[in-house]
Amino acid sequence: MILVMDKSATEADVKKVVLLIEELGFQPHISKGSERTIIGVIGDERQIKREQLSLLPHVENVIPILKPYKLASRDFKQSNTIVDVAGIKIGGPSVVIIAGPCSVESEDQILQTAEAVKKSGAKLLRGGAYKPRTSPYTFQGMGEDGLKLLAKTREKTGLGIVTEVMDVSDVDLMADYADMIQVGARNMQNTKLLKRLAQVKKPVLLKRNFSANLGEFLMSAEYLLSGGNDQVVLCERGIRTFVEYTRNTLDLNIIPAVKQLSHLPIIVDPSHGTGRYDFVIPMSRAAIASGADGLLIEVHPDPAKAFSDGEQSLTPGLFKQLMDELKTITNAMGRSL
Amino acid sequence: MILVMDKSATEADVKKVVLLIEELGFQPHISKGSERTIIGVIGDERQIKREQLSLLPHVENVIPILKPYKLASRDFKQSNTIVDVAGIKIGGPSVVIIAGPCSVESEDQILQTAEAVKKSGAKLLRGGAYKPRTSPYTFQGMGEDGLKLLAKTREKTGLGIVTEVMDVSDVDLMADYADMIQVGARNMQNTKLLKRLAQVKKPVLLKRNFSANLGEFLMSAEYLLSGGNDQVVLCERGIRTFVEYTRNTLDLNIIPAVKQLSHLPIIVDPSHGTGRYDFVIPMSRAAIASGADGLLIEVHPDPAKAFSDGEQSLTPGLFKQLMDELKTITNAMGRSL
Amino acid sequence: MILVMDKSATEADVKKVVLLIEELGFQPHISKGSERTIIGVIGDERQIKREQLSLLPHVENVIPILKPYKLASRDFKQSNTIVDVAGIKIGGPSVVIIAGPCSVESEDQILQTAEAVKKSGAKLLRGGAYKPRTSPYTFQGMGEDGLKLLAKTREKTGLGIVTEVMDVSDVDLMADYADMIQVGARNMQNTKLLKRLAQVKKPVLLKRNFSANLGEFLMSAEYLLSGGNDQVVLCERGIRTFVEYTRNTLDLNIIPAVKQLSHLPIIVDPSHGTGRYDFVIPMSRAAIASGADGLLIEVHPDPAKAFSDGEQSLTPGLFKQLMDELKTITNAMGRSL
Amino acid sequence: MILVMDKSATEADVKKVVLLIEELGFQPHISKGSERTIIGVIGDERQIKREQLSLLPHVENVIPILKPYKLASRDFKQSNTIVDVAGIKIGGPSVVIIAGPCSVESEDQILQTAEAVKKSGAKLLRGGAYKPRTSPYTFQGMGEDGLKLLAKTREKTGLGIVTEVMDVSDVDLMADYADMIQVGARNMQNTKLLKRLAQVKKPVLLKRNFSANLGEFLMSAEYLLSGGNDQVVLCERGIRTFVEYTRNTLDLNIIPAVKQLSHLPIIVDPSHGTGRYDFVIPMSRAAIASGADGLLIEVHPDPAKAFSDGEQSLTPGLFKQLMDELKTITNAMGRSL
Repeated sequence: MILVMDKSATEADVKKVVLLIEELGFQPHISKGSERTIIGVIGDERQIKREQLSLLPHVENVIPILKPYKLASRDFKQSNTIVDVAGIKIGGPSVVIIAGPCSVESEDQILQTAEAVKKSGAKLLRGGAYKPRTSPYTFQGMGEDGLKLLAKTREKTGLGIVTEVMDVSDVDLMADYADMIQVGARNMQNTKLLKRLAQVKKPVLLKRNFSANLGEFLMSAEYLLSGGNDQVVLCERGIRTFVEYTRNTLDLNIIPAVKQLSHLPIIVDPSHGTGRYDFVIPMSRAAIASGADGLLIEVHPDPAKAFSDGEQSLTPGLFKQLMDELKTITNAMGRSL
Repeated sequence: MILVMDKSATEADVKKVVLLIEELGFQPHISKGSERTIIGVIGDERQIKREQLSLLPHVENVIPILKPYKLASRDFKQSNTIVDVAGIKIGGPSVVIIAGPCSVESEDQILQTAEAVKKSGAKLLRGGAYKPRTSPYTFQGMGEDGLKLLAKTREKTGLGIVTEVMDVSDVDLMADYADMIQVGARNMQNTKLLKRLAQVKKPVLLKRNFSANLGEFLMSAEYLLSGGNDQVVLCERGIRTFVEYTRNTLDLNIIPAVKQLSHLPIIVDPSHGTGRYDFVIPMSRAAIASGADGLLIEVHPDPAKAFSDGEQSLTPGLFKQLMDELKTITNAMGRSL
Repeated sequence: MILVMDKSATEADVKKVVLLIEELGFQPHISKGSERTIIGVIGDERQIKREQLSLLPHVENVIPILKPYKLASRDFKQSNTIVDVAGIKIGGPSVVIIAGPCSVESEDQILQTAEAVKKSGAKLLRGGAYKPRTSPYTFQGMGEDGLKLLAKTREKTGLGIVTEVMDVSDVDLMADYADMIQVGARNMQNTKLLKRLAQVKKPVLLKRNFSANLGEFLMSAEYLLSGGNDQVVLCERGIRTFVEYTRNTLDLNIIPAVKQLSHLPIIVDPSHGTGRYDFVIPMSRAAIASGADGLLIEVHPDPAKAFSDGEQSLTPGLFKQLMDELKTITNAMGRSL
Repeated sequence: MILVMDKSATEADVKKVVLLIEELGFQPHISKGSERTIIGVIGDERQIKREQLSLLPHVENVIPILKPYKLASRDFKQSNTIVDVAGIKIGGPSVVIIAGPCSVESEDQILQTAEAVKKSGAKLLRGGAYKPRTSPYTFQGMGEDGLKLLAKTREKTGLGIVTEVMDVSDVDLMADYADMIQVGARNMQNTKLLKRLAQVKKPVLLKRNFSANLGEFLMSAEYLLSGGNDQVVLCERGIRTFVEYTRNTLDLNIIPAVKQLSHLPIIVDPSHGTGRYDFVIPMSRAAIASGADGLLIEVHPDPAKAFSDGEQSLTPGLFKQLMDELKTITNAMGRSL
């Protein structure tokens, strides 16, 4: 941690800061520049609260040196983490496609979708039983009945199940049914939920919040890792910007950023990330080309009749086309599908 | 709802859309322009899912005419809603100041703060017992012990208590202690929590999420209103932008927007909204001048030692100065403090 | 154009609007819904100023139906525009790489870079002689001397020249030297400059402003097209968001959006778009996979000594690696380099 | 300037950096922390380009300590700058209201508006003769004829004139007519224009670009100050965010930020900042309450017939109401109108 004293700071002001740093058990290191005096704080800066120093007189700025996350960083673990979901490995050489409807709507719908996406090469099935909807007047999910249909579909197709949990009270139930538990963008900083999921022996798919920067995203992963669950896959799904042609702005720049700073795998959800089915194929190609470890794709047998998110769902036919196009891109990347 | 057909749409394409609209129980209304044919959908458009129409061939655009929220709108209720919190009326002629520490830390700390803010004119006490923190390594709140200290402080000072709930499972406990239950920015779209709070007979302080537009904010209020709780106060607390001099961008423009579109009261939290104690006073004045019904202010007896958010907390001395300055501004607005 | 009357609008209010629409030479088309009356305006809505209608009593909303741009739209021209720059075709089957330093610094530097990028497969040379810098204390470009060095380098290498114009008064000079004139992000809405460039017989590379949405971007192209210059290539170079790991947020979602709505070619500048040399290779791959027609890449023989933008410049060695990786991606896309 | 070495940096890596710092004529200052070594650079860091150091092996981060602007900072000049525009002082105890139409449209229109705003208390007249419009198909301003009408209006009313310059080639003409030359948001970083205006003996009104952070805004002022013109007034006019209820997001938080970091006066343009006439009054009150030195307000005798920006223009009647309300607010702030 670096403290910058303002221009009018006197020797006495500096001394006061130095004494407090020592009192807190750290070692101060003064460096007098031409226009400013700066004071380095030697020791584990994560143990200091900024305000302990920033509010002292004539402290102009407090600059942290270390990243706030530890276990999620590449400093801590240099090799890539590979997460095993029902035998499918995310973060290794294969690019993993998770596909399925936004919501489980009926036995027919989920089974039909599962069979179609499996045939085209999807490795895991997504489907929501609990839905966080903007409007109270829209479909809120089938609940446990949906989970049962997902389990039944897994039995018939062999596809592992990825589904979203919305509340601490549903975690145990969810853990009984799901192969991977998804934390939605709106819950990325639901710290009670994260702490509870840290205790569960299931991989977690952690989606980035609309307004989360990378530090906040990795700190949410840190809740899981520090709580004992290191089976975490990150998911980029679009950020909130001023742009008008997509519902969100899918931010692929986060892929090389995560690869550099963290050992965790990261996949991309171009369905939510763009909100438009006609952008899903090009942005899926781009996601793989940027280095993503997989994709989360919404597929519905009849998007116009979907209970939710129909506008961003592929038909099984378009999903097949996507998979065909991805084959050449993953090859070009030296990976397999 | 208006459908815009694209330039290459034929008579047959239009007919197909018209038939579907009729099938759905609505009345189509065709209008042929010079470059586009548009089709109005007569009936309660909130009953149609966009994708039912937007995915039809040659439909270029689907434009909703009605706001998605109903009960939260001024269309529904024209007079201002006034919310009563422990006898204090929010949304009426008086501007209401809610003040207190970010977190309850000890009996001394909360009592000392409460007495100070009361003396300067605060009408309600804020204080967090459950804290949603970005980092798992920082103070997470005192939990029920914190609630007990709040209750004790209420007994001694007479100030009603505003405190944050983070999880459905804490709602009952919270309802026992709090006079007003706060839903934090991160939980604005925690729909399970909103549904549960709708059933509780306590006023709710609903904070705007960092990336929520007004439609989404009012739809979260709609969860509360449609579930049976009409004692809702909105709170602006800053949005996420590119700006570097504030932690968030306090968006006062939402005050006239809410006043125009909704009957619900709205207050402003300049402490979180700016993240800087030295901006709290000018932005508080501005908030009142823009028409806000109150303020939520963080105050701590010794901000440098605060367990959380010290950098945005006023000392009791600065809080007194704030209240003095607000007096003249509220007078200028024809309101009282 | 659609007018939505508010809930309290009377027959008389509607009539008033209808009369004005007719007076303006358009045909009104009334449609009474369950909650709102809407009025369609039949005729070329681009001839009406919104405020003529939006400010009438009880008009709640005015919704345009047509896009504001005409000549830049696919409605106007369905086949892709291919722009010829010194014999190199942008917008056709080949992906075109434009590379070179941010600024021309010396004869050696520009020639050395040009030879290196040509050898690796670049088709055009970029290099700035006039630089729009944030700080008045930094290098502002070599001016005409820089243009002369670019011309000399063209003679020696055969590479066509792309360089930025900053002011109307430099357009003639620029047209003498450049094969393609670049309009920088900061000048995207410099309408005097656009009007002047519309009269020049040189292709224009139009960069997106940091905060431009697609409508505004295409309207800037419209200035060029309507002024008589249809040799326009668009360029995405990052938007301003809250994100901290890139200097800007490269927004590849605009590629499919432009492909859908416009006939103009679009290329991507991942150097400015991310501001980081170590992100240029992955984001270049992603750009091509998303469907971009080319790339604009900063290359410098010794980035640490660059007069500007060294942190986002590739060395010739990294540029060669980029080109090698792009070969497989362009093949996968069924295009050539 | 502080350099942070990464975790794997060796003694030799540190030495290499130290040698280069010395070679560049600066003094290195090493500080070994528990997890990172940091190196302070003693000397005027504005003389170093980041990339000279950031691209060295194992340099993880380069953190500037000083603000990039010098002459615009309070460090450089502690007392408030007061700018004199035709005898009206901006930045002193009085709040200055500049009002008038977006565009000069006719002699009648500008004279009528000028007389109305003067009567209500405006001290200066705004009016555009050159207009930067998003669309090439809309009114682009009257040009020099507009300037002549402004001059004529000044003669009749005594109001000083504020008008926008769009291009270097118009600066001399503009200086003949205007009392204060406005640089629009789109030209904030038109460095050629700024350099030219620095040589003119006229006060400049510098508007913030839609996507400018404070550092960039003050660096644009620095172009003027370092070029010899210290008569600069800043103007906040809204930033680009995701928000849907205003055309831009008026960011009043910048007022206390500028007051802290710079000696330059700052005024607010709520007309452009919100894009809505019905928000102008509340946001004007808020602007003054936040500490702004003045307002720039669009007024038109008949907004529905305005050639531009009618939706954000006040009628003379509403302008009078605004001025009445501002009187009490400025009094509350201890200032006069």
